[in-house]
Amino acid sequence: MTLDELPTPCLILDRARLDRNLAAMAGALARHGVPLRPHMKTAKSIDVARRALAGQPGGITVSTLAEAEYFAAYGIADILYAVGITPWKLDQVARLNAEGADIAVITDDPPTAAVIAAHPRPPRTLIEIDTGEGRGGVDPGDPLLLELAARLGGCLAGVMTHGGHSYAGRTPAEMARVAEAERAGVTAAAERLRAAGHAVGIVSMGSSPTALAAASLAGITEVRAGVYMFGDLFQAEIGTHGIDDIAVTVLASVIGRRDGQVLVDAGGLALSKDRSTEAAPTDYGYGLVLDRLGQRAFGDTTVRRAYQEHGVIAFDPADPRAGVLGELPVGGRLRISPNHVCMTAAAHDRYYVVDGGGTEIVAVWSRVNGW
Amino acid sequence: MTLDELPTPCLILDRARLDRNLAAMAGALARHGVPLRPHMKTAKSIDVARRALAGQPGGITVSTLAEAEYFAAYGIADILYAVGITPWKLDQVARLNAEGADIAVITDDPPTAAVIAAHPRPPRTLIEIDTGEGRGGVDPGDPLLLELAARLGGCLAGVMTHGGHSYAGRTPAEMARVAEAERAGVTAAAERLRAAGHAVGIVSMGSSPTALAAASLAGITEVRAGVYMFGDLFQAEIGTHGIDDIAVTVLASVIGRRDGQVLVDAGGLALSKDRSTEAAPTDYGYGLVLDRLGQRAFGDTTVRRAYQEHGVIAFDPADPRAGVLGELPVGGRLRISPNHVCMTAAAHDRYYVVDGGGTEIVAVWSRVNGW
Repeated sequence: MTLDELPTPCLILDRARLDRNLAAMAGALARHGVPLRPHMKTAKSIDVARRALAGQPGGITVSTLAEAEYFAAYGIADILYAVGITPWKLDQVARLNAEGADIAVITDDPPTAAVIAAHPRPPRTLIEIDTGEGRGGVDPGDPLLLELAARLGGCLAGVMTHGGHSYAGRTPAEMARVAEAERAGVTAAAERLRAAGHAVGIVSMGSSPTALAAASLAGITEVRAGVYMFGDLFQAEIGTHGIDDIAVTVLASVIGRRDGQVLVDAGGLALSKDRSTEAAPTDYGYGLVLDRLGQRAFGDTTVRRAYQEHGVIAFDPADPRAGVLGELPVGGRLRISPNHVCMTAAAHDRYYVVDGGGTEIVAVWSRVNGW
Repeated sequence: MTLDELPTPCLILDRARLDRNLAAMAGALARHGVPLRPHMKTAKSIDVARRALAGQPGGITVSTLAEAEYFAAYGIADILYAVGITPWKLDQVARLNAEGADIAVITDDPPTAAVIAAHPRPPRTLIEIDTGEGRGGVDPGDPLLLELAARLGGCLAGVMTHGGHSYAGRTPAEMARVAEAERAGVTAAAERLRAAGHAVGIVSMGSSPTALAAASLAGITEVRAGVYMFGDLFQAEIGTHGIDDIAVTVLASVIGRRDGQVLVDAGGLALSKDRSTEAAPTDYGYGLVLDRLGQRAFGDTTVRRAYQEHGVIAFDPADPRAGVLGELPVGGRLRISPNHVCMTAAAHDRYYVVDGGGTEIVAVWSRVNGW
C-alpha cells in the first residue's frame, strides 16, 4: 500500500523521525542518569509505546482510563494515571488492578486521599505538587502536603509535578528555569514528607520542554514527557522541536480549486481547532502545508480557515514556491503539519506509518481514543 | 443507570430538547411546503436520524463516507454526500451503491465531472453552486456551470448550495438575506441549466440559520440543516437557537479545587478547542458551566482554560450564584454547554440520553466518527 491509496484525511507517522525524536529524549535523560516514564497521551499507541520504552524501566504515564485499559491489555502493568483521581474512577482503577495492572493515581485533595486509603483495593498514590503551573497540586510548603500524606498512609508512593507553564517559555534558558522550579519544588516536597517520617519512593517531574532543558535532575527518580515523540508546530515555535522533525502529519486530498485557494478534505475535525501558534512568533493558522512526501515545498503556506470537513489553503499564485499549489488537481494529495499534535491525532483511530520520505506504508498502528 | 453512574467526560443528550428542536425546524419548513434532508454531520447517530426524518421523505445529508456507510447499513439509502468528491472517493461511493445505497455526490470541478461520467457505476451528481460563502462551488452565472452539466451528462441530478456565511449574521433579517441569496442563486443556476436542455430534479439549499429564517423557498426542492437538532452557544449567540434549548452537553467530574477555581476532567479533547464564541457578543470560553441537571445554576461561569484533559472553571467566590461551585467536592458533577456542538460531539462515541431534567439514562445512542 502507498500514500496514494489511503483514505483521506488520515494520519501519517514517519517512523524514522519518531525514532530520532525518541533517541534525542533518551540521550537528554541519559546524561542525568534518570529514567523516562513516557507519557502516552500524545501517541496513544502500543507500537509507539514499545519503541519509547527501549532502554527504559518499562512504566508509562497515561491521561485517561481508556489508555490505562488499552496499555494494560498489551501487558504494560506499571502505569501512572496522571490526572487527579475521583472516587468513581478509583473503582475503575481497582478493577483494572485486580485484573493484573498496577495503576498508580494522583491526588491533591484530602477527602479523596481518605477515600483512597479506605478503598478495599487502594492503588499506589502520588501527591500532586504545584511548582508554578497553577492548575492542580499543592504547594510544597502547604500544610496540606502533610495532611495528604497522613490520610494516604501506606498508599503514599511518592510525589509528582508537571511544569506545564514551560509552554509559555520561548528559550532554552526559560525552559531550564521552569525545569529547575519543577525539580526544586517536587524534591522539597519529598524531603518534607521524608522528614515527617513518610517513605517517598517516586519523585516524578516533567514536560517535554523541561525534560530536554533541565540542567540538573538531582533528587528526581523519573521524568515524564509525551509530545517530544512526534513534535508539532507549537513545539517548534517554542524551540523544543525541529520543524523538520515533526513525525505526524495529516494526509489530505484536494477537493476544490479556485484562484489562490485550494480546498482540502482536512478541516476542523481532522486538524483540530487548536490555534496554539496564534500567539507564537509564527501563526501557522490550522497547520503548515507540505507536499505529499512531507516536504516543505510551498514555503510558509498554511491552512487559513477550517470548517468541519473543509480546510481552506490560501496562497499567492505569483509566489514561485506556493504558486505550484494551483497546479494540483482535485484528488491531489498534501500533508499538513499540526499546531498541536495531541489534539490533532485524537480525531484519528490509527497511524499509517512511512519510513522517511517514501510513499510506501510499512505498517498500520492503532490508537486508543475516548475515555 | 443515572447521570451519577456514568464515566466522565461523556455526552448527555436531552431527548425532550432534541424533539422540540426537530419540531421547530419541521414547522419552519412546513410553512413553505418544502421537505427537509437532515444533515447528519452534527448528530452522526441513527437514533437521531430516525427522529429527524419523521414526516420527511427519508433522505439525509452526510459529511463523510464513514457516515454514509453507517447510515446505509441501517437502511437509509438516499444519501447526499455534501463534500466535493474526489476520484478515490468515487470508487468508495460506487462500492457502497453496489451494496444497496444510493449515494449522490457533489462537484464543481470539470475534470472530476468527466471522471464521474466515465465511471463504470456513476452516482447521481449535483453541481455545487457558490451563493456567497466563497468556499466551494461555481457562481450561477459562470460559464463553468454549463461545462459541468455537459460533462456530467446523464449523471446530473440537480444543483445544491450552502450559505455557510449565514454564520456571520447576527439578526433574523441578516439570516433571511443570506437565505434569499441561497435561494435566488441556486434556482438561477437550475433555470440556466434547464434553459440549456438539462433536467434538474434537485434544487437543494440550506444551513440551520437560513432554513429557519427564509422568507421564500420558491423553486427549492429540499433544505439541508444539521446543527439545529442540538444547538450550541454559537447558534444561541447568532440568535438561531435558544440557550435553554441546547440539547447536548458534556458531563464532567470535578478533579481539583482551589480558591475561585474548579478543575474538571473535560478539557480540550472532551470540549474541543473550538472558540467560535470568541468574536460573538458573549465569549463563553470553552463552554458554559451548568449543574449536573443541565440548569444554569452558576450564572455566566465558563470554562476559561482547556488543557488536553483538564478544564479550568474560574469563578468569583463572592458571587451568590457562582460561589456555590466552591462547595462541590472532588467527584462532584457538572455539565458544560458547547461552543460548537459538531466539534465537541466528535470526540465522543455515544450519547447518554436523558428526557428533560431528570437523572435517569433512558437510552444510549451510538455515533459514527472518523472518515
